Amino acid sequence: MKSHTEYRTFNTDKQQEIIHITPWVEDEVSKSGIQEGFCLVSAMHITASVFVNDNESGLHQDILDWLDGDLAPWQAHPARGDDYLHNRTGEDNGAAHLRNLTVGHEVIIPVTGGELDLGPWQRVFYGEWDGRRPKRIVLKIMGE
Amino acid sequence: MKSHTEYRTFNTDKQQEIIHITPWVEDEVSKSGIQEGFCLVSAMHITASVFVNDNESGLHQDILDWLDGDLAPWQAHPARGDDYLHNRTGEDNGAAHLRNLTVGHEVIIPVTGGELDLGPWQRVFYGEWDGRRPKRIVLKIMGE
Amino acid sequence: MKSHTEYRTFNTDKQQEIIHITPWVEDEVSKSGIQEGFCLVSAMHITASVFVNDNESGLHQDILDWLDGDLAPWQAHPARGDDYLHNRTGEDNGAAHLRNLTVGHEVIIPVTGGELDLGPWQRVFYGEWDGRRPKRIVLKIMGE
Repeated sequence: MKSHTEYRTFNTDKQQEIIHITPWVEDEVSKSGIQEGFCLVSAMHITASVFVNDNESGLHQDILDWLDGDLAPWQAHPARGDDYLHNRTGEDNGAAHLRNLTVGHEVIIPVTGGELDLGPWQRVFYGEWDGRRPKRIVLKIMGE
Repeated sequence: MKSHTEYRTFNTDKQQEIIHITPWVEDEVSKSGIQEGFCLVSAMHITASVFVNDNESGLHQDILDWLDGDLAPWQAHPARGDDYLHNRTGEDNGAAHLRNLTVGHEVIIPVTGGELDLGPWQRVFYGEWDGRRPKRIVLKIMGE
Repeated sequence: MKSHTEYRTFNTDKQQEIIHITPWVEDEVSKSGIQEGFCLVSAMHITASVFVNDNESGLHQDILDWLDGDLAPWQAHPARGDDYLHNRTGEDNGAAHLRNLTVGHEVIIPVTGGELDLGPWQRVFYGEWDGRRPKRIVLKIMGE
């Protein structure tokens, strides 16, 4: 059994941003030399996500607007309409925590024949829900 | 370490549909001969899901209505009320992309003693959010 | 390749509750003796979640209120406003099934150098969405 672990840091210009990371994940699979296995890509923060979807800019704006709508608006708690209780701790990012729970923080992708076994339109993204500061993801591949 | 990989194609009659796939997953675990490991089942499309829940038809309708409600309605973006930007690309399935993000696209199930280690009511489902065309899932089991 | 499997039962006082389980997960990683691998923690019920987020009580109340708001209210189906169809089967927990789908039922955490490879604020939680009865989670670590 082999394993391969790597980290990557993002420091986004915008507070919310979606970043395409498939080429980086593919490079790490190649470096690992693993032919059959699982590739885990996981945000190391609770105000960010890693997810698989389409590399289309209109859709990315749809996702950002969706999360900032009734689902997890930045300004006020979606159900109570007043402050996030979390924001009384000195933070302002309660909404980003809920976005992390909606979209999830990690994906696990099969590696088959030495390559990511994704469908034709599936790409991997880092979703930053509270950026403008250094934040990390971890990638770990296990297999043989 | 052993691994076992299989694919399955769905072509649903309805645009949205929930399909029970536990017996197929159990068969693949049995074929793999793996006693202790992880079983990944993952949609290869960004407008479909694989998830674990209850095999109860009323609940399945509750899930379909929930996704088509305020969460990710087919007709218009849930926050803006106008078109999904994604739908200006010639697509009409922006909603299906958001449903994929809500429910997730993959599950990873422990294999213990040669069997899926699920709770008494847990079953595995393929969630089709934009069907009537061939779509695939991948199953990969790793262990020993 | 080594594997290590353990179960834990919860019987919460409240119907909805968020329970911090990182110390237990860390203990199991240590017991496993695995240095490089994946640690899966998964609810064995379809009305509960396992998730990673912040160990802050205000945020936990924000999460409980969020799920009980427009997303998956206990009293009535969020889109139709009438009963959950699932609740016509003699159950009353249709909402808990939707909360399970929103937050997810499992997490997979990398193990690096014999420890959970989590970010500085990431902690692991059991989310009980329909408690006051014994419910189990499974933990399985695979690696070397």
